[in-house]
Amino acid sequence: MRSVALTLFGCFFGEGEVDFIQRLCDHIAMPRPLNAAERDAAVTAFEDTLAVTYAGWAEPSAAAARRVFAGTGAQLFDGSRVQGAEYAALAHGIAGHALDFDDVHLTSVTHPSVVLVPALMALVESRPALATRMIDAYAIGLGTNIALGQALGFGHYDRGWHATSTIGPLAGAAALAHLLGLDASAARSALALAAAQAGGFQRNFGSQAKHVQAGQAAAAALRASLLAEAGVGGSPDIFGPRGFFDLYGRTAPGTVSDRIDITPDTLSVSRKLFPCCYLTHRMIAAALEARSALPDGLPTDARVAIQVPYGGMRALHVTDPQTGAQGKFCAAYCVAAALEQGRVGLSDFEDAAVHRPALRRIMAQVETAEDPLVGEMPVGIAHGSVRLRITRAGRTLAEVKVHHYPGAPDAPAAPEAYAAKIADCLAIWRRVTGQSLTPEAFRSQLRSHIGASAGAEN
Amino acid sequence: MRSVALTLFGCFFGEGEVDFIQRLCDHIAMPRPLNAAERDAAVTAFEDTLAVTYAGWAEPSAAAARRVFAGTGAQLFDGSRVQGAEYAALAHGIAGHALDFDDVHLTSVTHPSVVLVPALMALVESRPALATRMIDAYAIGLGTNIALGQALGFGHYDRGWHATSTIGPLAGAAALAHLLGLDASAARSALALAAAQAGGFQRNFGSQAKHVQAGQAAAAALRASLLAEAGVGGSPDIFGPRGFFDLYGRTAPGTVSDRIDITPDTLSVSRKLFPCCYLTHRMIAAALEARSALPDGLPTDARVAIQVPYGGMRALHVTDPQTGAQGKFCAAYCVAAALEQGRVGLSDFEDAAVHRPALRRIMAQVETAEDPLVGEMPVGIAHGSVRLRITRAGRTLAEVKVHHYPGAPDAPAAPEAYAAKIADCLAIWRRVTGQSLTPEAFRSQLRSHIGASAGAEN
Repeated sequence: MRSVALTLFGCFFGEGEVDFIQRLCDHIAMPRPLNAAERDAAVTAFEDTLAVTYAGWAEPSAAAARRVFAGTGAQLFDGSRVQGAEYAALAHGIAGHALDFDDVHLTSVTHPSVVLVPALMALVESRPALATRMIDAYAIGLGTNIALGQALGFGHYDRGWHATSTIGPLAGAAALAHLLGLDASAARSALALAAAQAGGFQRNFGSQAKHVQAGQAAAAALRASLLAEAGVGGSPDIFGPRGFFDLYGRTAPGTVSDRIDITPDTLSVSRKLFPCCYLTHRMIAAALEARSALPDGLPTDARVAIQVPYGGMRALHVTDPQTGAQGKFCAAYCVAAALEQGRVGLSDFEDAAVHRPALRRIMAQVETAEDPLVGEMPVGIAHGSVRLRITRAGRTLAEVKVHHYPGAPDAPAAPEAYAAKIADCLAIWRRVTGQSLTPEAFRSQLRSHIGASAGAEN
Repeated sequence: MRSVALTLFGCFFGEGEVDFIQRLCDHIAMPRPLNAAERDAAVTAFEDTLAVTYAGWAEPSAAAARRVFAGTGAQLFDGSRVQGAEYAALAHGIAGHALDFDDVHLTSVTHPSVVLVPALMALVESRPALATRMIDAYAIGLGTNIALGQALGFGHYDRGWHATSTIGPLAGAAALAHLLGLDASAARSALALAAAQAGGFQRNFGSQAKHVQAGQAAAAALRASLLAEAGVGGSPDIFGPRGFFDLYGRTAPGTVSDRIDITPDTLSVSRKLFPCCYLTHRMIAAALEARSALPDGLPTDARVAIQVPYGGMRALHVTDPQTGAQGKFCAAYCVAAALEQGRVGLSDFEDAAVHRPALRRIMAQVETAEDPLVGEMPVGIAHGSVRLRITRAGRTLAEVKVHHYPGAPDAPAAPEAYAAKIADCLAIWRRVTGQSLTPEAFRSQLRSHIGASAGAEN
């Protein structure tokens, strides 16, 4: 079957060159071993993802998914059940993304773990013996995610795709293909069946459909890998002409192979400290720093000008948020909260919060502008700096430049700040489910979820 | 919530103009009444779709889906059960498309009914009271399908998308939104949640993933409409900038509204008489006609030249089929079968059949060529003609030009040919399931499936 596609399209690959799909399948079958720091980072990705999933549990989108797909087939974290493993991945993925508090990968412009973790856990719930390889499988999924993000480039996100839910099905399928031990032919089919479910776009940002898009990516990984395991065939090379890269990335066929790393670099994941779109985080960091230069607060006649690099406003299309969810995609609102309060937290994204008159007044003082595209389309969103300047009657009161995203590998979260995030998340879970869950109990549950693979090595 | 999007993007719509999403929601809520011929055609679409679904029941892709998603939630045609309604839609959609024998809409380049019928039936299986509005809901889904196909144009298919599975989720969601009686806001969300599941491409043609793509479109309609019914919100206008049309069609925003008809024209559906890619059908018709001019058969030193309009080879990327499924996308193979046998039937697409030496010899005599694109990108695939010429030593032995697709509204299937198709399909079902099903019993089952809506009016 492979011969058909390669006979027709083989000319796009140079003699002796190992093509991208082959390298990807090698990565799935035989990953690079992780070092101790990389394994620790992967365990932390599970921890962070579970915590934000618990925190998002009662959000309307997550509750609706549990209700609509209730059944007897697969168990969720709270002990309730849904129709099957795919819906467990969907429900957990929706809850994990509902607060926009889950981790981020900056060069692929994705939320990788909220797809990978629910997909892996849904499969392991029904096949507990596979738990021992979950960390490796996570790293394989992440490596696939990183590679596809590089291949598509920022242009993919720039056009309006939700990269989490377009790349996510393939990343998840790669992870599950490893967990299931699929052979190379079945792994190719799993990727083809996953790519057939790639979708989701930024117009849904600010609505519950964004959460669903993340959950769907996780569910799609289940569907694709389980069908491939059952022998359902797909294209042997979805990356050839008129395939995934052409349709989602407008990448010239055959140009992808060489320049793309497929690396399971778990240290490249950023963890959020504010529950809103990551594009607001450098702005928030700048606003928090500027605030310390204003001991008497922001004058009511001051002007807050924010300049961001090209692409830095892409997802922030909300200017007049009516709901908390919309507030997460409103730059002026997030900055106003930081300037007024000296903090941005979960309570700022409850529906009533976005209407507070004090913040609305500050929002009117905030102006944002995006740099034009100069030269090549960037890769990812971690380029350039966010510049915030507060002026009053022509005089500069504060000026701050922020290069690193808070929580990113170059500006990691302080241990106490990260611990506070986890504790906050667990407190919500206790409040909404009535189930007691101390940070200690949570960590022990985490170790039991991810099984011997973490326990043996850490 | 709507205000956010429209405030930002409202400038793209002229004053007083009713935008596309609004017209689509009006169509969903209050469709144009169908006349008797249109209702008959809709009932026939159900009949044809069920018959090919029965015929495709034992195909490996369909059998795998039933096995992988087996459960206790929803009942399938053979009495077996899957985990829930979404999987009933998936399994029936896969079976219905597995033989590539299901109906076609020429201007949207889609298989509309294999998405709509399984989606509608899966919902009605769990909510029988809704059966009375199934025909209207089908027509609404078809109208949506036709409109989106026009809006995306042939360029969408030309780039490699499988339009059935990109448009299908939205068409299905529109049909189910009507069936569920969703209000306008929920209908918009259903469309947004469906659009987030739009995917699938032609590189998977010739593999089982193509069947899965059709089934997924049906399943996606269930997920989208049920989540929207449960209150999950999406973008209020997925057709605005950086939305569905921009990502899948590269249509200039705001240019779509006026020129697009949203019509539930059930008479525009074509029914297939050969179980292979519809792009081969005009070639087959030409070959069958040419054959009658060759009383002694095709000379072994003759040349068979086929010239097709721009786009006419798009899906026919197989030149050396190794499986029956690949044979469905090989122009030379389909033409060879027609020339050799005077017929093309289901047995020609069993795996062994594509290796027959007699047909391989003829395949080597067949050459195909596609006209270049001249002027505007066409809409759909029913333009131009297929020209077949058989020559020998410079002398023309036969020359045929075929304009209409066999089974299309302009060249409808003869009643006896259509009845023979249905009988063939049911014979396979009897053979593979052991369940007796006469054409009479089948028709009575059909009436009970589609409920009073057909019975009352026909």
